[in-house]
Parts: sequence; structure tokens; C-alpha cells
Amino acid sequence: MKVIEIKKSVFADNDQDANLLRQELKQRGVFLLNLMSSPGSGKTTTLIQVINRLKSQIRIAVMEADIDSDVDAVKIREATGVESVQLHTGGMCHLDAEMTRQGLDHLSKEGIDLAILENVGNLVCPAEFDTGSVKNAMILSVPEGHDKPLKYPLMFTICDLVIINKTDVLPYFDFDMNKCREYVLMRNPKATILPISAKTGEGIDAVAQWLLDEVRKWKL
Amino acid sequence: MKVIEIKKSVFADNDQDANLLRQELKQRGVFLLNLMSSPGSGKTTTLIQVINRLKSQIRIAVMEADIDSDVDAVKIREATGVESVQLHTGGMCHLDAEMTRQGLDHLSKEGIDLAILENVGNLVCPAEFDTGSVKNAMILSVPEGHDKPLKYPLMFTICDLVIINKTDVLPYFDFDMNKCREYVLMRNPKATILPISAKTGEGIDAVAQWLLDEVRKWKL
Repeated sequence: MKVIEIKKSVFADNDQDANLLRQELKQRGVFLLNLMSSPGSGKTTTLIQVINRLKSQIRIAVMEADIDSDVDAVKIREATGVESVQLHTGGMCHLDAEMTRQGLDHLSKEGIDLAILENVGNLVCPAEFDTGSVKNAMILSVPEGHDKPLKYPLMFTICDLVIINKTDVLPYFDFDMNKCREYVLMRNPKATILPISAKTGEGIDAVAQWLLDEVRKWKL
Repeated sequence: MKVIEIKKSVFADNDQDANLLRQELKQRGVFLLNLMSSPGSGKTTTLIQVINRLKSQIRIAVMEADIDSDVDAVKIREATGVESVQLHTGGMCHLDAEMTRQGLDHLSKEGIDLAILENVGNLVCPAEFDTGSVKNAMILSVPEGHDKPLKYPLMFTICDLVIINKTDVLPYFDFDMNKCREYVLMRNPKATILPISAKTGEGIDAVAQWLLDEVRKWKL
């Protein structure tokens, strides 16, 4: 398993650097997805399901950002067979564009259509830094509650796709899906909202289709 | 509802400032608990249950830190009747000692035995800043998974009390309580681990007793 110790960025202007990275990715035909969520909302399980539906159609690689452990990158590799690298942030709570570039540099240089960055589990800091991604997605899981868009406004404002995971446990939680949709759209009226259960596979097809459509648009 | 816009700290040495705050609190006979967790793990619901068991025995006040919203402070006040203030961090992902002092300054100056700081929902940044608290507690909820101490090492290292919440949904998740205990103790062999369900009230008595004992020791 490739483990990369990410270094702190020296760039003063992250926004400028992120735009530069996006241009480079456009030229290389690589779509970068930045996937965020709270700890334990099901990022890795969701990714495994989505990748297994898409890997025969497009070439995928994954960067797993974590403060310390390697468990996610190993899990992705074993469950999907796609290339994955582990990025250690050394305690840092987010990734910016330069840190993301360090990760991309360790992936195969050619032939990737879709690079996925699984960001650090955190609803605050990752939202503040443009990683250079083409699209931002986040997972809110049912047990966390439908009020999260009220409490973590920036995260929901910057996400193009909001996945609502763990719908299989809806009967056991006071989670109001309609209110959740309303709060998400309050932050970002253009957000796509897709309820799923990564455990049962329900709704995964829709997420895979959304991603495939976005990758194809980017590569036109 | 009192809402305080927290200002960024100017102190260079947070550790020194935190020790100073602890000394001041000791002199005033105030015990400060710093409560942390991921978003949606049940901090506010747990606090309401614990406070309602303790409020006839000790005088309690709560500081609710949030990036933006006021929902938690209102909820605490309505459900318990104790004094509560809302601290707005203005996007900041943590509180340090000086920010905590700004909050304490807005609570009644005299007669508080226990001040509780409900920190920003985040397993990364709050762990890095000593708030001046006498004890640190965190809540890990069953849906987040038993592997979290592996992925967020510092949080579990610095916590004296680890509350495992939402045990009522244990049948619906692959959560291994024994492994969780093992991982927590790997980070901090002296941690107290208490499983609870804030929803059903199971285990709350033990948390209230732990807190009452700690407050009494501090005030000796």
C-alpha cells in the first residue's frame, strides 16, 4: 500500500492554485471528485459500491486522506481492485489544492478518467479549501440528523451533490427527509440530493449515473 | 437567547493561557467540562439528560459553540431550565482557552459549580486546543463505527471520558463494543468508557455520577 505523508502547502493563494490544478486536469482529461462527510457517515463503503458499478466503463483511482491510519486505502483496493493511495495529513484537518496535487502525483500518470479524493472526516475545515476538484460531494448519514445543513452551512453551500446515506435505518431515527431536503436547498438551491443505503445498495445506481454523466461532460 | 460572536485569540501560547484559566476556575470553584464529538453524535441530547439528573444537586451553566446556528442553546434552556449561551465561532473549527474565556465571561459570575462547553462538532481540530477545561469528554455514537479511535487518535488520547451513545440501535449496525473499548484504551489506557442511549436514558445515571464525582473532587 502506497502511503504518502502530505506536506504543508507553501502557496499563499489556494484559490489560484486550485484553478490551475483544474486546468491541468482538464487538459489531461481527468475528472477530480472531492468527497467529504463527518467521521463514520459511510464514505468508504459508498465509494466501494459506486466504483464497482463504474469500473468497467471508466478508469478510476482513489486517494484516501486520513490523519494517521491506512485502513481505508487497503479496503478500497481489496474491495474494488482499483488503484488507491493513502494520504497522511499528519494531523491536518483538511486538504488544499497543493496537498491534493501531491496525491495525484502518486497516481498513474496516464489513463485515469476519474480520480476520487476521500477527504478527512470533518464538516468544517475541508469546506474552506478548494482542492481543485471539478465537483464537490458530501455524505450526510441519517443518524447524524436532518438539521446538519443549519449547523454546517458552508459545507452544504459548496457541494454539488449531497448523498443521504443509511436510509435503511430511517425507521430507528427521527430523521425528516423533507426537512433535510429543504435545509440543503436553502444552502444551495442547485444541489442534487440522492438518498442511498450503501449497506443494501439502494440508490447507488443513481449516484453512479450522476458521476458518470459529470465525468463525460468534463471530458467532452 | 444570549449569542456571543467569538473573536479570534491573540495569545501566542494557548497551553499557558489554558493553565491560567484552569487556575482561575479552581479559585472560583468552577469545574469546566469540554464535551466534543462528530456532528450528530448526540451531544445536546446527552447533555439535556445528564443536566436534568444533576441540576437539583449542583448549579450548572452551558456554553454551546456552533459555527452559525442557535438551535442548541435554545434547546438546552427549554429542556433543562439552566443558563445557556450560544457561542458563534464565525467559521472557526475549534475553541481555544481565550475563546472559552469569552464564553465564561457571559455566564453568571457567581454560583456556578459546573460549566459545560459543547464544542464544535469535529473530531480533529478541537482535540488540538486545550480549552482550559478540567476534564475532556467525547461522544462516539454507534452508527459512526468502532474504528474511530484508529482514525482520530488525538481526540481519543486527550479524553478522560468516552461516552458511546446510541446503544439502542446496536442491532442495526456492525459495531463491535469490545473492539471499540480496545481501540479507545490503546489511545488512552486511563479513559473511562460509558455506553449510553441518550434516547432511552440507559446509562445516563453513570455519566451523571462520573461528572458529579469529578466536580466534587475539583471543589475540595
